[in-house]
Amino acid sequence: MVVGVVGGGQLARMMYQESIPLGLDIRFLVTSPDEPAAQVSRHHTIGSATSADDLRRFAEQVDVLTFDHEVVDLDTLADLHASGCVLRPGASTFATVSHKVHMRRAMTGAGLPVPPFLATIDPAEAASVVSDDGPQVLKLAHGGYDGRGTFFVDDPAEAARLVESASGAEVLLEPRLDLLAELAVLVVRRPSGAHVVYDPVTTVQVGGQCRRVDAPASHADALLASARALARDAAEAVDAVGVLAVELFLTREGLLINELAARPHNSGHHTLDGTVTSQFENHLRAVLDLPLGDASTVESTVTANLIGRDDATDPAARLPEALAVDPAARIHLYGKTPRHDRKLGHVTVCDDDRDRGVERVRRVVETLGGQEVPR
Amino acid sequence: MVVGVVGGGQLARMMYQESIPLGLDIRFLVTSPDEPAAQVSRHHTIGSATSADDLRRFAEQVDVLTFDHEVVDLDTLADLHASGCVLRPGASTFATVSHKVHMRRAMTGAGLPVPPFLATIDPAEAASVVSDDGPQVLKLAHGGYDGRGTFFVDDPAEAARLVESASGAEVLLEPRLDLLAELAVLVVRRPSGAHVVYDPVTTVQVGGQCRRVDAPASHADALLASARALARDAAEAVDAVGVLAVELFLTREGLLINELAARPHNSGHHTLDGTVTSQFENHLRAVLDLPLGDASTVESTVTANLIGRDDATDPAARLPEALAVDPAARIHLYGKTPRHDRKLGHVTVCDDDRDRGVERVRRVVETLGGQEVPR
Repeated sequence: MVVGVVGGGQLARMMYQESIPLGLDIRFLVTSPDEPAAQVSRHHTIGSATSADDLRRFAEQVDVLTFDHEVVDLDTLADLHASGCVLRPGASTFATVSHKVHMRRAMTGAGLPVPPFLATIDPAEAASVVSDDGPQVLKLAHGGYDGRGTFFVDDPAEAARLVESASGAEVLLEPRLDLLAELAVLVVRRPSGAHVVYDPVTTVQVGGQCRRVDAPASHADALLASARALARDAAEAVDAVGVLAVELFLTREGLLINELAARPHNSGHHTLDGTVTSQFENHLRAVLDLPLGDASTVESTVTANLIGRDDATDPAARLPEALAVDPAARIHLYGKTPRHDRKLGHVTVCDDDRDRGVERVRRVVETLGGQEVPR
Repeated sequence: MVVGVVGGGQLARMMYQESIPLGLDIRFLVTSPDEPAAQVSRHHTIGSATSADDLRRFAEQVDVLTFDHEVVDLDTLADLHASGCVLRPGASTFATVSHKVHMRRAMTGAGLPVPPFLATIDPAEAASVVSDDGPQVLKLAHGGYDGRGTFFVDDPAEAARLVESASGAEVLLEPRLDLLAELAVLVVRRPSGAHVVYDPVTTVQVGGQCRRVDAPASHADALLASARALARDAAEAVDAVGVLAVELFLTREGLLINELAARPHNSGHHTLDGTVTSQFENHLRAVLDLPLGDASTVESTVTANLIGRDDATDPAARLPEALAVDPAARIHLYGKTPRHDRKLGHVTVCDDDRDRGVERVRRVVETLGGQEVPR
């Protein structure tokens, strides 16, 4: 069985790395041979995930299609599915999860808690929500990540303008919530529904971009148990196959499902170094309908994203200094051209003492020339 | 800096896998695109390690040469070194370590303990040792591994015949020792002499072929400390760069150095799953003169080699069953064509209870269709 991964970014690269021990056969659809996965893998095809022709040609070379991003032509996925191509996750899961409004409705439909929201295509309605209910978070339905596509709006006219600019696509409005914490839970699910759930983690965002992940999250057991249950139910509700990342808001009213991603996720990079089976290996096992690996935590970790600074320092050039700073730190570089605000890698340390772990990871990221890691 | 690895076997394949997180640039000299490392890597060159032309052409493409086996043209290595090529380990280390008699003399010269031995090119001398001193272990100086090139001889005429068949090359004779255990210690050394030492492990051989590795070894602290010290001294004596694997006999008279290998080694595969930094990553760090990673043990492991049976069962075909047997077992397949007595992979389990670990690993190896793992 050959797995075809649509996309060649860092998630695809880490899938590749994790495919080698099991001897899995995995290929990539990439836009350029310089993409992170193409740099390291034996087989890739050049093409665009938004081109029906390219997707179809790629699908013919493989037995099962999976994804490292959401920017894919959904109609083609539906056509591929109709013509018998094996998609994991499936076309309908993909369509639901990659559309913020559809996703919220699916969760609500399954009785799962989400933030209060309004979906609209009407600029006047958006403006009146802001003038009546105060400042809102406005999110485009598609393509938002790392804080892109998300706007904090307190001016009714601006809300109207943003809805207009979405050219008829639904826009999501929600009140600014008072968050006690943000959590994430990874579920990995086989086509049969058999699944494993990783320990919930705490994520720390800066401007909507994940900067730090502490694993496992150190909340009360009951709260962590309900986070796991919510994630499992969300995966069932969208019939996920492979990794489903469930991002949760912790508010005074309890846990709310904020985002889903139907692929390996930035909140699970610590699984490479701190759990028995990584999210990447388990994603591939699920996609190939193989028995899933143990998702238990072996070590407490702090992981920080290595985010490019505006001086475009290349972390690869700083590797010798960074390796010297902390011989036990696990440095992961993605082979990407340095750019401001771009994710260029991540660093994980295993440390039972979370504060010490944060300081260790901060020092390594700083030495590599990344943006500051929040304390 | 580009690392060129001479050889494309499983050691090269695991070096590749471990090079990806650090974004290292690594290429392979392989005899065929089907070799384990060539199957998974982006760059390889087809050629023979015993051809001076092929080695020279490969050396021109890279900044530093290292090795995944010892079957290399030594004169060419010396020439390459003389012409300024960076070899790690160096040509003289390689020449010493890959010749059993030179290696033993180097250890003796450094005051390090080795089994009593006689090196000879004289068939009559070999015959008289057997008739005077009783059964001997006779080893060819070059090319022996997995028990090949090693003979248990109790007939003087056979000893004479074996020395004759070596066509003038020195042959090593040693008495059959009464072994309490076999240990191995990995040292990783930078060109400066800076080094890390992994915890000693116990190896279990069948017919001279390593079948099981228990890490860390559970002997008395004082014994383990002298094993580490011997390994470190051996690495210094041969001026090793990269991994030096030191195989030790434990006898009633104490520890004796049996074999050295100047490359990542079968006794260190557990480091992929049970230590902070794997032997493969540390080998590459040393070869690139980068700061070494922490070699501490995170988890106690039992590792078994997956050795092909005479029915040539393909472990890849048994993967679904084997993954189901033990969700926490770490299966490593090398992508090699199944053949009797061939190393096709290895399986590691992390388990504090050694007996349970052995039983777990036995079950997985058996399910994959490998030869029996000794208890």
